[in-house]
Amino acid sequence: MSTTINTTGWSHTEIEISQKVLKKAYQRETETLMAQVRNQIEDMSDMEQLWQIHDLLSAKRYDLDGKYDTREGMLVFTFAQLLKEGWISLEELTGLDSAKLGKISSLSKM
Amino acid sequence: MSTTINTTGWSHTEIEISQKVLKKAYQRETETLMAQVRNQIEDMSDMEQLWQIHDLLSAKRYDLDGKYDTREGMLVFTFAQLLKEGWISLEELTGLDSAKLGKISSLSKM
Repeated sequence: MSTTINTTGWSHTEIEISQKVLKKAYQRETETLMAQVRNQIEDMSDMEQLWQIHDLLSAKRYDLDGKYDTREGMLVFTFAQLLKEGWISLEELTGLDSAKLGKISSLSKM
Repeated sequence: MSTTINTTGWSHTEIEISQKVLKKAYQRETETLMAQVRNQIEDMSDMEQLWQIHDLLSAKRYDLDGKYDTREGMLVFTFAQLLKEGWISLEELTGLDSAKLGKISSLSKM
């Protein structure tokens, strides 16, 4: 009945916290994107602007596909990226062990 | 001072008619696309629908890039395709010689 507290293994509680935070971040990011597209469509008056929206969607789709990497070995990097981009705060990750939080915080500043 | 009336050469008048009709068709098609995207964005409630809009834009962009081929040797095919898809009527091409109109009409039914 030991709890994993090293920086590579993730305890059951840490996984639960991670899933919750990832879900919230994804929801924030996609809702922001939907709102942005709605605004741009509202202001759209020519095809050039529609292709700009298409370009935005192509870039965001690629970005979102790669960014939400939920593999244990990648979670520290995933959270660092989301923190850097402002989709999550370090406080939301409370409950992860301090070594992981330290890594995430450091990586987010790179 | 001869007027070209064969089916491959295009007279100055025919080119003028063609340019006007192509411009109108492109305008109709892109305005329809903009209206369609506006409607879909209005009804959008989740990301799945936003990605469907992205897929639609990718397909239409590719389609529009290839379809409006204004090279003289391709005009008959361009008009046949636009006629088939309903973006132009045969009446709008009045002024082209009858052999070209016949070709366009036949090709549009293939």
